[in-house]
Amino acid sequence: MEDCIFCKIIKGEIPSNKVYEDEEILAFKDINPAAPIHILVIPKRHITSLIEIKEEDEKLIAKIYSVINKIAKDMQIDQKGFRVIVNCGEDGGQEVGHLHFHLLAGKKLGEKIV
Amino acid sequence: MEDCIFCKIIKGEIPSNKVYEDEEILAFKDINPAAPIHILVIPKRHITSLIEIKEEDEKLIAKIYSVINKIAKDMQIDQKGFRVIVNCGEDGGQEVGHLHFHLLAGKKLGEKIV
Repeated sequence: MEDCIFCKIIKGEIPSNKVYEDEEILAFKDINPAAPIHILVIPKRHITSLIEIKEEDEKLIAKIYSVINKIAKDMQIDQKGFRVIVNCGEDGGQEVGHLHFHLLAGKKLGEKIV
Repeated sequence: MEDCIFCKIIKGEIPSNKVYEDEEILAFKDINPAAPIHILVIPKRHITSLIEIKEEDEKLIAKIYSVINKIAKDMQIDQKGFRVIVNCGEDGGQEVGHLHFHLLAGKKLGEKIV
């Protein structure tokens, strides 16, 4: 997608602070972090939002969670804990139209989840 | 797990307001909703937290997202949007030691995600 900021990050047209990359998935630090650790984990293929995932994307979603756990272990937040948030659509507060998983950690996150 | 409240809900020992059920997954309304729509989607098998998921659980995680999208369509929140949150461990604010995915919707959720 030509105008997608995350696709531009994937292509390297916009710089990012990468923490994980493979053929299908990229993870990078959020430039406007909501917590001491705030990573965005995204599929490299442009999928607009969570509601758009198809049956054939199931493996990709599972792999994203495997990557999230890997990052949590690498960053040593696996024991203390972390939060994963996916916003879908306007009511969900989705800000970029490319599926992304927020990985948040580094402090005791609030009990109020919305 | 004998003392797990979600395992008791799965077994029917504690009542719940179910919105989806199959052999592997149960979804029910949160008794203390944080938004007009607040559903908990859980695997029936006791998995303590997100960090405990193994490679063999990947299909289950993918299926949970498929169920989340099905519920979103059934409840007609697929167009307006929704938010999915998974809390893992103490810093993540996990309150019950049985993996669960919060599905939140029914109003414009805040931009402040933690």
